[in-house]
Amino acid sequence: MNQPFSFRLIKTNGTARRGEFATPHGKVQTPAFMPVGTQATVKGLMPNDVQATGAEIVLGNTYHLMLRPGAEEIAALGGLHKFMNWPLPILTDSGGFQVMSLSDLRKLSETGVTFRSHLDGAMVDLSPERAVEIQALLGADISMQLDECLKLPASSEEIARAMQLSLRWAERSKRAFEGRAKQGYALFGIVQGGDDLALRAESARALTRMEFQGYAIGGLAVGESQDVMLRIVAETTPALPAERPRYLMGVGTPHDLIEAVKRGIDMFDCVLPTRNGRHGMAFTRLGSINLANARHANDPRPLDEQSAHPAARTYSRAYLHHLTKANEILGAVLLSTINLAYYQTLMTGMRDAIEAGRFVDFQAETETQWAKGDLPPR
Amino acid sequence: MNQPFSFRLIKTNGTARRGEFATPHGKVQTPAFMPVGTQATVKGLMPNDVQATGAEIVLGNTYHLMLRPGAEEIAALGGLHKFMNWPLPILTDSGGFQVMSLSDLRKLSETGVTFRSHLDGAMVDLSPERAVEIQALLGADISMQLDECLKLPASSEEIARAMQLSLRWAERSKRAFEGRAKQGYALFGIVQGGDDLALRAESARALTRMEFQGYAIGGLAVGESQDVMLRIVAETTPALPAERPRYLMGVGTPHDLIEAVKRGIDMFDCVLPTRNGRHGMAFTRLGSINLANARHANDPRPLDEQSAHPAARTYSRAYLHHLTKANEILGAVLLSTINLAYYQTLMTGMRDAIEAGRFVDFQAETETQWAKGDLPPR
Repeated sequence: MNQPFSFRLIKTNGTARRGEFATPHGKVQTPAFMPVGTQATVKGLMPNDVQATGAEIVLGNTYHLMLRPGAEEIAALGGLHKFMNWPLPILTDSGGFQVMSLSDLRKLSETGVTFRSHLDGAMVDLSPERAVEIQALLGADISMQLDECLKLPASSEEIARAMQLSLRWAERSKRAFEGRAKQGYALFGIVQGGDDLALRAESARALTRMEFQGYAIGGLAVGESQDVMLRIVAETTPALPAERPRYLMGVGTPHDLIEAVKRGIDMFDCVLPTRNGRHGMAFTRLGSINLANARHANDPRPLDEQSAHPAARTYSRAYLHHLTKANEILGAVLLSTINLAYYQTLMTGMRDAIEAGRFVDFQAETETQWAKGDLPPR
Repeated sequence: MNQPFSFRLIKTNGTARRGEFATPHGKVQTPAFMPVGTQATVKGLMPNDVQATGAEIVLGNTYHLMLRPGAEEIAALGGLHKFMNWPLPILTDSGGFQVMSLSDLRKLSETGVTFRSHLDGAMVDLSPERAVEIQALLGADISMQLDECLKLPASSEEIARAMQLSLRWAERSKRAFEGRAKQGYALFGIVQGGDDLALRAESARALTRMEFQGYAIGGLAVGESQDVMLRIVAETTPALPAERPRYLMGVGTPHDLIEAVKRGIDMFDCVLPTRNGRHGMAFTRLGSINLANARHANDPRPLDEQSAHPAARTYSRAYLHHLTKANEILGAVLLSTINLAYYQTLMTGMRDAIEAGRFVDFQAETETQWAKGDLPPR
């Protein structure tokens, strides 16, 4: 398990890419979707059940883990992989995004950010160097640089200032990472620049000159339209080196994933499949399905008898409806499982289509199936 | 899978009994513990994970299932086994106990009980005949007669009246059951009589004359002391036929189980292992352990490295503490699993000890281990 981090581009189809990267905890096929394990657990699921959905890598949240149980504490317990009993690769974010979205008092300076913990009100410092240190303590296969995530809308000046600060933090993150990096572990830079295409391109070019092992597009999936997001993705990916993986942070719906892969994205993370699963929503081959709807109450059919995952083939819609209405934990567990499995099926489908040179057809077929919608009532 | 219901007494050791019963969905070794699957799910656990704890039978709650999704609805979906994807035996209670404890308006008559649903306020009738019908619709391998469960303390007259009514309902339940019983399915009578030993004996003798396939002791585990409960058990079991299984409803702690098996009980159900698991409490070989306690925060040791279940050997106490403090679903899932597995290990231990004629020694060893308490802090 001591392969270096490397990315291999296997095939392209248009601007869509089929690849593979290797980490100290194993290989990951791309385009890849990473389930979110915020607090050292993909909510509700045992690690082997996460693996059974087809996931090859999960994401952990630095902000949550640094506050509870703490990075040094996890390191003393043998690192995040051992702590959460997840043997495959882990990517951690840098905490920047959650500092913006979860803590209610922030003070930003050139040095870093000071914020009030949403758990106990303590004041906490996070700098680019500390973010790298935390992620090294966690043992992340892939670490992310600390960046400043702006709330949009913001003025052009403000967007430019935050992007430039993020670039300086990228430099410092890289120096800190190189000072302690172990063979095979990776650090990714993050492109910022809001909805300004010129700033995005400038950020991408500057990061590329710094030579990261991979590049993320950050500051999206924060409420902008899909059009805006996809335009930024389409304009940014050409400015990134072809031989490095590209990660679109916090995205998205199944349709977002297809459109972003089409524009050259290799990696995704998103809470949607698990969060929506906890609220009775299923993502399927037949589109998204609200299990709380009374139409499912007496329906003996499974969610999708063609699903690759037994949970979507075994339990009746009536049962999933019942669990949802009764607020039973198992409803959240089963629908999270089913949704993660569907996301992985979608990624597998895209990978196969790119290899076969038929990504456009795959997209058309998938969207046609979604557009047909759910099974007619019995 | 079409064996008739039968109980075979394999070995006795003092008044403790080792046996086996056969149902249409398979055999169950006794003494047996039945996890509670109130709303057609053992809370939080996938059915195969329940089976992996060693459970051979689960309990379903008629009261909850008749209100949501409804008995006829479950029957139309193929019965409770199929609905909840549980292939092994199911015992259902009659609803009497929950009518007492959950619905806020009740009108009791000779005919039955009318109550207000705690879900939607609808008025619902439950009679002995309807309780049998509901359980048949669910497809329960073992059904329970409807009884009147009294809140204690109550006057002797009131206890006697409720016991006599429960006997008349037992007769009616039996007639209704025989009118529709299928080969191999069983109906159990329920001994009532509060804390009055004479009334308990009278109830047991009258039920025995009616010839049920098994006998339960009801109306206990409602707040009385363990002494009172065990005295009633000890005085009641001799009045029941040796060749039929005996089920102590709603009990209990691991210590309750040992003391009741010692007094001739064959079957148990209780929410404790799952409910306490959802609140950070573990039942183990080392006694009960509160994972919310800060002493576990940095403890890399598993809950019990000698456990038969991998969950108790794999995850660190620090991780279980973290999940508990962070209110993560997986904490409830893992501790429920660990607790159910410990209950099954305890039952296996008792069965082996009875077969080996060393139940007293097993009890002493188990209690000595509990008394030593948890591991010393590291």
